[in-house]
Amino acid sequence: MTKRAFNFCAGPAALPEEVLKQVQAELLDWQGKGLSVMEMSHRGSDFIALAAEAEQDLRDLLHVPNNYKVLFLQGGASQQFAQIPLNLMRDDQKADYIETGIWARKAIEEAARYGAVNVAGSGKVYNFFAVPGQNEWKLSKDAAYVHYTSNETIGGVEFDWIPEVGDVPLVVDMSSDILSRPVDVSKFGVIYAGAQKNIGPSGLVVTIIREDLLGKERSDCPTMLNYKVAADNDSMYNTPPTFSWYLAGLVFKWLKKQGGLEGMKKVNQQKQELLYGYIDSTEFYNNPISQTSRSWMNVPFRLIDERLDKLFLEKAEKNNFLNLKGHRSVGGMRASIYNAVGLEAVQALVAFMKEFEREHG
Amino acid sequence: MTKRAFNFCAGPAALPEEVLKQVQAELLDWQGKGLSVMEMSHRGSDFIALAAEAEQDLRDLLHVPNNYKVLFLQGGASQQFAQIPLNLMRDDQKADYIETGIWARKAIEEAARYGAVNVAGSGKVYNFFAVPGQNEWKLSKDAAYVHYTSNETIGGVEFDWIPEVGDVPLVVDMSSDILSRPVDVSKFGVIYAGAQKNIGPSGLVVTIIREDLLGKERSDCPTMLNYKVAADNDSMYNTPPTFSWYLAGLVFKWLKKQGGLEGMKKVNQQKQELLYGYIDSTEFYNNPISQTSRSWMNVPFRLIDERLDKLFLEKAEKNNFLNLKGHRSVGGMRASIYNAVGLEAVQALVAFMKEFEREHG
Repeated sequence: MTKRAFNFCAGPAALPEEVLKQVQAELLDWQGKGLSVMEMSHRGSDFIALAAEAEQDLRDLLHVPNNYKVLFLQGGASQQFAQIPLNLMRDDQKADYIETGIWARKAIEEAARYGAVNVAGSGKVYNFFAVPGQNEWKLSKDAAYVHYTSNETIGGVEFDWIPEVGDVPLVVDMSSDILSRPVDVSKFGVIYAGAQKNIGPSGLVVTIIREDLLGKERSDCPTMLNYKVAADNDSMYNTPPTFSWYLAGLVFKWLKKQGGLEGMKKVNQQKQELLYGYIDSTEFYNNPISQTSRSWMNVPFRLIDERLDKLFLEKAEKNNFLNLKGHRSVGGMRASIYNAVGLEAVQALVAFMKEFEREHG
Repeated sequence: MTKRAFNFCAGPAALPEEVLKQVQAELLDWQGKGLSVMEMSHRGSDFIALAAEAEQDLRDLLHVPNNYKVLFLQGGASQQFAQIPLNLMRDDQKADYIETGIWARKAIEEAARYGAVNVAGSGKVYNFFAVPGQNEWKLSKDAAYVHYTSNETIGGVEFDWIPEVGDVPLVVDMSSDILSRPVDVSKFGVIYAGAQKNIGPSGLVVTIIREDLLGKERSDCPTMLNYKVAADNDSMYNTPPTFSWYLAGLVFKWLKKQGGLEGMKKVNQQKQELLYGYIDSTEFYNNPISQTSRSWMNVPFRLIDERLDKLFLEKAEKNNFLNLKGHRSVGGMRASIYNAVGLEAVQALVAFMKEFEREHG
């Protein structure tokens, strides 16, 4: 039996060990039914109850208002990049997008294939080391919606505020910071999030949409990408990714046991303070992101002496710290410290980083 | 520890017990790496190797020629219903479709949203109890492609022959009979199949496409639905459903151990002969499908005295035979006997059916 590693992967990311143990225990025989969740009909009463419970637990955690639908979909955030304009923007309309890094850029490029996109604000002037303040934005008067990316997984910038956009629907890609702290869902028209960071396994994406935004799809929107069809069919227009849905449900229950999102906020705050605090205290490591835009979930950092990068990664892996290599477009290191990466993992990482500095500083 | 049930679910369907046991054993710690496959980066060397091996095993099983790409996608067959016309049919083109039941109908309706659809052949004259012979088809001269459904999961009809369509690309929804016996892939332009019957868990769909058909997509095709983008990125344009891909790979290895598709053909032939043979031998049960169109995978049947339906299902469940209730649109019973449902399960089912007939006939 190998020891479980400290896994700082940006996604697919670490899952709570307690959740994995339950999945393991019931993998061949779910609740004495003699079959795996993977082998159950999505139309059967067992799975329908399990799916509804997962949705309710997510609603509880996020205090989702009653006039919002919660959808369990496929294709990741990248498919949402198309689904948003296909469902919300007519040919003759425009949409406002805020550019904060690589993921926002991808959303912009896909939307531009369906209508006019106005980049209303951009972190480019800050080299994407900060999110642009709302006073810098130039919003359109008649936008179909305003889209932003609340956390950039690669760049490591995060909004710690919610934009004010009046009556225009606010759409957010919350893939990498959903469920990491409380958020006021009522401020949004649409929230979407790929599961593979804070929700569950890859292959599932959760979309929370205000009901009045349903039924506005373009005529060429594929049926499977139509939010209204998904909503009208309780996300079971066709066979959903049942095992991922089940696993997400277990994660939601685990989050409730941790004190819900208030509880997660507390520990996530401690984790990021510890890691950024240490990085800021030394000349050996560096994080370039503006203090007020730093991500709580993805912490990119550099060794000032880049020649030590390879050795750092080798020693890290030998010491059971996995997936610390930064994204290829950024270089350096990145520690993704999502909900399932506990305070003890961050403490161990900081201890390792200190030791490495002592040896090589 | 409960006994594993005999699971005749139409999908998500039974998986080989041997595969589930391996998944269970390595769920928290894949090959001593200290993490679950679910927690591994899809860009890491471990997952890339695992994914490539799964693809190669599938290529081996189906003898996929080198000029075909094998794609691991999301959204199920229903999303393929849109992807096919979005990638293969221009606005001014038409496509030929063969109507054989509910799933063919769904494919037709989705395609008709993107271009002209010619229903070139239909089983309607046979009340969908048989597939229409090719001599009854009226193919267009200039069709972008010809689409058919090789096995209707609900109706229980199956083609035991491959249509001859000359130079027009032949497209097939093989969701519920892929890998059940050998097939000549070179006859097809595109083969697609939702995973949740003979491949692995739901949330994964496999598409095998001849390379010359890539790059013909409509301008409004979402990037995530573009076959060429998927092919150019080895099905990792974004995060794929990694756990489902891994599980599919284990199923492919299991199939190889069973003697590949020749081996599966042998046992699947025995299974269906046993079940249809018994049904045909009695006045107590009935299957309405024409002898030459009977599905090897999905066997719908009725009790002649419908008043016994409820009791049959109750006793079946008590005896550990699950998911025998027929689709709501058809009624009666249905036994789905995919690859992972062994001969012993069909023998046990027939014994149970005989006993029920003895008691209530």
